[in-house]
Order: sequence, then C-alpha cells, then structure tokens
Amino acid sequence: MASVLPASNTSMRSDRNTYVGKSFVHVKNPYLDSMDEDVLYHLDLGTKTHNLPEMFGDVKFVCVGGSPNRMKAFALFMHKELRLTDSEEDIKDICAGTDRYCMYKIGPVLSISHGMGIPSISIMLHELIKLLYHARCSDVTIIRIGTSGGIGIAPGSVVITDEAVDSFFKPRFEQVILDNIVTRSTELDKELAEEIFNCSKEISNFPTLIGHTMCTYDFYEGQGRLDGALCSFSREKGLDYLKRAYNAGIRNIEMESTVFAAMCRLCGLKDTTVSKDEFLVQEDQPLEGQPPRTQTKTPCI
Amino acid sequence: MASVLPASNTSMRSDRNTYVGKSFVHVKNPYLDSMDEDVLYHLDLGTKTHNLPEMFGDVKFVCVGGSPNRMKAFALFMHKELRLTDSEEDIKDICAGTDRYCMYKIGPVLSISHGMGIPSISIMLHELIKLLYHARCSDVTIIRIGTSGGIGIAPGSVVITDEAVDSFFKPRFEQVILDNIVTRSTELDKELAEEIFNCSKEISNFPTLIGHTMCTYDFYEGQGRLDGALCSFSREKGLDYLKRAYNAGIRNIEMESTVFAAMCRLCGLKDTTVSKDEFLVQEDQPLEGQPPRTQTKTPCI
Repeated sequence: MASVLPASNTSMRSDRNTYVGKSFVHVKNPYLDSMDEDVLYHLDLGTKTHNLPEMFGDVKFVCVGGSPNRMKAFALFMHKELRLTDSEEDIKDICAGTDRYCMYKIGPVLSISHGMGIPSISIMLHELIKLLYHARCSDVTIIRIGTSGGIGIAPGSVVITDEAVDSFFKPRFEQVILDNIVTRSTELDKELAEEIFNCSKEISNFPTLIGHTMCTYDFYEGQGRLDGALCSFSREKGLDYLKRAYNAGIRNIEMESTVFAAMCRLCGLKDTTVSKDEFLVQEDQPLEGQPPRTQTKTPCI
Repeated sequence: MASVLPASNTSMRSDRNTYVGKSFVHVKNPYLDSMDEDVLYHLDLGTKTHNLPEMFGDVKFVCVGGSPNRMKAFALFMHKELRLTDSEEDIKDICAGTDRYCMYKIGPVLSISHGMGIPSISIMLHELIKLLYHARCSDVTIIRIGTSGGIGIAPGSVVITDEAVDSFFKPRFEQVILDNIVTRSTELDKELAEEIFNCSKEISNFPTLIGHTMCTYDFYEGQGRLDGALCSFSREKGLDYLKRAYNAGIRNIEMESTVFAAMCRLCGLKDTTVSKDEFLVQEDQPLEGQPPRTQTKTPCI
C-alpha cells in the first residue's frame, strides 16, 4: 500500500480548501507547511516515506477505540458490511512497524486504536489529523466507538454523546500548553448524534440514548470505584458523586471524550462518541430510582 | 502457571506485615479486604481465578515501560542475564487474555507494559499494586525503564530521576478524586537512584546522569513541540520554556513519572524511573551553551 514519495512533497498542499462546498481536514499550526518532512512517529508513517494522498485520500469515516483487538474486529466487520471485493487477508495493520497504535483501512473507513486515557488518544489524534491533512481528505466523520461505564442506565446500553464534560461536570477540556492552561470547547456534532440515534432505532437489541459523557483522568479514584489500590472516600460519598453526575445529565463515564471533542472540532472533523456500557463494578450501589451500575462483558462493537 | 483458588481466599491475608524487617506492598483501601473477589480486570487476573501468591509471591523487582514489544524484549534480556534454566519459549504473556497490557515473569522479575500517559499507567499500577498485595510480596523495587526526551543533555543519555515534576516544574501529582483535587508527593527513592547511577559507571557506552524528570499530559503542545496538528506558541516561547525547565534542574520529559512516583510511594514500593533520551525533534533549537535536543532511535533497553 505504501509508496515512496519524491524528495519534496510541498506541491500536494497547493490547492487546499479551493473546492467549493468541501470541508477539508485542517491543522492549526503555522510551522507545519514549512517542514521538509513530517514524521508521524507513533503511527510509523511519514510524508517522505509514504504517499499519504494515495494511501488515505479517499477516507471519509474514521472510527477509533481503545483496544487494538477490537479495532481489528471492527475492521473485519466493516469489510463484511461494505462487501468489498478484496480478501479479508488483505486487511493488514498499517502501523505494524510500531506497537503504539494499530490502524486498518477498509475502503473509505479507517479503524484505529488509541490506548487508554487522554494523553494516549491525544498523541494519536495529533498524528491522525496531520495524516488526513497531508492526504487532503475532506468531509471526514470521526466516531469514537469505545467502552464506558453507564450511570443510571440499563446494563449494556449504548450512549451517544451530545456533550463531553470533565470531572467537575463542565463542558471543557483544559489543555496545558507549555505552562499555560487553555480551556477548549468539548461540544460534539449534535446532527451526527441525532443521525446515529435514528439508525439505532432500526436495531432492536441495543438500548440506545443520547446524553452527556463524563471524561476522567483516572479509572479508580476518579470514577468513584471502591476497588482500586487507593480509595480515600466513603461508599456514600462515591454514590453521592454519581448521583450528582446523573442529575447533571451525565449517562456514562470514560477517559477520552473531552480531548477527542476538543481536537476534532478545532480541525474540521465531524465528531461524536458512541460508547457501550461495559465496566461497572458496584452492583450494590443503585442510584435511587434508577437502574444500578452493572457490569457487562459484551464487546462494544 | 495459573491455578484455581478455593472459593474463599481470605486466609491468605491474615499474616500480613507480621515478619519483622520485611516491607510488604500494601494498599490504602479499607474496602478491599472485605471483597469476596478482586478482579484485576485490565490484567485479566483475579483472586478467585488465579493463585496469586503462588504465581507472584517471589517477585522482588518490577520493571515497567510503555511499549509491549520492548517489555517482551526486556523479559528475554533478563532471562539471558539471570541464566534461568527454563526455555525462552516458556516466557509467555501472563495477560494474554487482554490487549490492554502485557506482562512477563522471569524469576523474581516482572516486566509489564503500561501504554502511554498518566491515565494508562495509573490503571496498570492500581491493578499491579493489588496483585503484589494479594500475592503477599515484600521488599519490592519498581523501576520505570521507558523512553523520554532529553533537555540539554547528550543525545541518547540515560536520566535517572531523583524527583518527578509537573508542567509547572512542581514536585507534585494532582490526583482528581471524585470532584476534589488532592496533591500527592512525587519524590522517588534517592538511595535507589544512587545505586543505579553507581552501576552505570561500569557501562561505558551509556552517558548517565541523575536529574529531575518533567511529566506532561501532552506530547506535542505540552512539551514545546512545533510539529503537532495544533501549535499556538512561537518557536521562541517554546525554547524559553525548555530553558526555564533546564534551569529548574529538569533533564528530560516524559508522560508517566509523577503518578508513578506518587502511587508507588504510597504503597510501599521502592521506586525510580530510568529513561533513555529518545524523542527529540527540534534539532535546530539548541539550548544556549547546552547540547541541542536531538532525536535518537536507540531502544531504551
């Protein structure tokens, strides 16, 4: 799939944003275009070593999730759904030269893993956005299809996020830039959320809803769990926090959505997250008048 | 290696901390001992499904690093160094049932991957500390042997961390617990750092030093890089930040050390980080009077 580019690839950038009606993926970095080469280190790709427009120019959908195995399973699922003529064996990990992330391309769909947590997805998103920019991609929709823990919803529910919020229930992502804190918006594409919600009505076995998603930096102490190596709050205080989250419109908790929303929005990607309730441990802690938090093991895709 | 435990495993906890002179790995969670079962979800291990004391009771050293491939390579290296009688083929990923982390045991040494960033290593550490606690391990030394970007040091240098600091050069880790921020100490074991530094004198081809390590949440905007998808600061401002970091005693930047230091210290592990300069991209930005930041591709182990 990869092919070597001529020494200079600056020509590929000349006609960006000239097609009327197309929304190109863009970067917000004045230094990038003057670089002789851009190495996407953690993806094992680069502008001099790979013909990115040829490899990725037709990408219209990007689906990201934490687990490499699941993103491979999703790629195989998409291959079946799209009824592509090439063999399943041709679906190879494009980032096989590194073990940081894995990436599969199935027609116009990219399936990429991002590991766990804001820093891990953030490195991947920086390099993915540059990849889509160098490849001159337009009108790209990106969807996070990870797992999450539900709050006060039926076990195994799928939550489509309308707004990502932080641990303080605020719709913001605080990005540390050098030693300054810059606050970025975490609004997601509401139209896309509605569109996916409408699709869900055709599938009977997935209870689906639209709600706020809380994004934390920590899985144990940050999400009210009582079974980490460290736990300094009482059962009651943890439950009170989850109740307040529920009352603020939060329906699930995960660890990537705020930076995902912030970065994709800044760079012209139509974005949403679709998370399936998976982890939840405190079955003895029902939210008053709501279904308990429960644990399911169903994969998210 | 794994074996099924009887239904109750509470008996294994009775004699904790009773041996004089031994320092047992401990948890700080009053709820843990009353749980009937502890599932270490992201490690694919548990107290009812595995005999943790039998599997891990002899562990004395834990080495952790971001990349799964490197931690496997380190396991094979240790196998050779320790001249163990079992075959190399017996070194299997203990966490093969999950793709979140990988883990290898070589005699008294555990080698575990932790992914990238504070949230990812934090999940692993919660479950690793619980594993060592359930296995009744004592006098355990833990070393992070990851990669990092050097500041004002010779390319490829190894930095042994005496203190982990955050983006504001402060020796602290701010843990969000529910919606409270708790500040934790990030001091590392200075005796261990000196001990490793003394060992390094016997190896001629690794320039090694002791210094502060800065831990950021972001690889691009957080570390002064000019080649991310987003970059809102000037070249000069980025360089000024790195100079100020150097003047504060910081010799390298990575993305895990503050939470590593904070959690290990709280739970009775003797800890340090040993990072090899690997990433550095801005070769045109030397620190005045200091060697430039450079990029090397040498693996960290």
